[in-house]
Amino acid sequence: MSRGRRIRLVLGYDGSGFHGFARQEGLRTVQGVLEDVLLRMLGTEIPVEGSGRTDRGVHARAQVVHFDLPYGPPVERMVHVLRRRLPADILPRAADEVDEAFHARFSVVRKTYRYTLDLAPLPSLYWYKFSWHVPEPLDLDAMKEAAKHLLGEHDFTSFCAAEAPQRDKVRRLDRVDFRRDGSRLHVEFEGNGFLQYMVRILVGTLVKVGRGKESPDRIPDILEARDRRLAGETAPPHGLCLWNVEYPSAYGGKVIDLSDDL
Amino acid sequence: MSRGRRIRLVLGYDGSGFHGFARQEGLRTVQGVLEDVLLRMLGTEIPVEGSGRTDRGVHARAQVVHFDLPYGPPVERMVHVLRRRLPADILPRAADEVDEAFHARFSVVRKTYRYTLDLAPLPSLYWYKFSWHVPEPLDLDAMKEAAKHLLGEHDFTSFCAAEAPQRDKVRRLDRVDFRRDGSRLHVEFEGNGFLQYMVRILVGTLVKVGRGKESPDRIPDILEARDRRLAGETAPPHGLCLWNVEYPSAYGGKVIDLSDDL
Repeated sequence: MSRGRRIRLVLGYDGSGFHGFARQEGLRTVQGVLEDVLLRMLGTEIPVEGSGRTDRGVHARAQVVHFDLPYGPPVERMVHVLRRRLPADILPRAADEVDEAFHARFSVVRKTYRYTLDLAPLPSLYWYKFSWHVPEPLDLDAMKEAAKHLLGEHDFTSFCAAEAPQRDKVRRLDRVDFRRDGSRLHVEFEGNGFLQYMVRILVGTLVKVGRGKESPDRIPDILEARDRRLAGETAPPHGLCLWNVEYPSAYGGKVIDLSDDL
Repeated sequence: MSRGRRIRLVLGYDGSGFHGFARQEGLRTVQGVLEDVLLRMLGTEIPVEGSGRTDRGVHARAQVVHFDLPYGPPVERMVHVLRRRLPADILPRAADEVDEAFHARFSVVRKTYRYTLDLAPLPSLYWYKFSWHVPEPLDLDAMKEAAKHLLGEHDFTSFCAAEAPQRDKVRRLDRVDFRRDGSRLHVEFEGNGFLQYMVRILVGTLVKVGRGKESPDRIPDILEARDRRLAGETAPPHGLCLWNVEYPSAYGGKVIDLSDDL
């Protein structure tokens, strides 16, 4: 029997109400809710594969998943059909049909995470669930200087959870950008892969630098030492958002072009 | 015994997790949470008066309350002290000491509400809890024309809940402004007072006009008829935000100047 069409689905979620992306028995997770909706919709179990896990409380603008549909609605209707069945805190954005060689996790070539700091004296009504409130003045120039030392291929052992499951801790960071938007500071990280808590520890360390508690010049030593204890604190999860996931264009399907206004 | 200092407190809240502002036994309300925090803080019951109720699910950028403190922290420390004790979805913004003649509700001279529509094809991650998603095209010019007919002093019986408790339904609407911000359309209503569901029914009617289901020229007739059934639907509560409350400057205290970036 054919396993049917392979569907690639882009979805956002407000991580506030989820115990992370990955299914866990008895807990509300994004994968769990999505698989439950597909089961109710189609009467058969449809396993969902994501581009990667996100931790409890972390948001996504554009998580990518794939699943195989033996039957069901045409792909053009998929977003609409799912939107009516999913809870409001999961936002399906786009879907296309892809080659069966496509895999949401194994085919990833690049990911972007965005971490948002709220620098206002008091937390914002609209952003308090999507940002880390850091009201002290930060030295942005020092943070930018520190970020430059992080670019390129490094062993990021110092910047991931001590218990991170991956054995190979070498990753390539292609871009760290700072974008100011009112009282908010968005820090974007683009790279070929991220270790557990990596973005949150990078942000915790950049904020430590911004507060003058660490020198930007120390970053190369911290990388070199491969010792988690030398980096800064793990920034809270609710400031983090999985922003974008990229795949080789060879996997075809129409290009999913997301506006920045999500 | 002196009732002590009268404190005016400005607070924002995310209405998503509250059964409205007004205390209700056994339900989580803004007034209830605030009074509970004051009781635990001071060991005595401190009744809180608000500028008015907000319905279940309605947000506030700047609700104003007052209460009398027999002792307790200096007013300069009030926001900081409360922020540490209140849950994250109540955001104290400013506090000052006011004359005992000041009353959060009876002294109001003007209020502003903001209603947010999200006109994007799909709801936004950051705005889905703070806006009404209306993806169909709207005729903004027709809506603006309709809004003009609402300005001034009118009997708003047609635009409030049939069971609204106020006997006098005459209110003065000073300003209805439309502000575009990306895919969002903020509609601001400023007036000397608002009846139950009034802003939400005004918005429901403006959207009906925007959809071409009602002519802007019909607004004067609808006002005249004093019949709720002639107006549009009641827009959902989560798009509504109590934006500002104004008092005569004679009540003194320092001017509370709120940035727009809340």
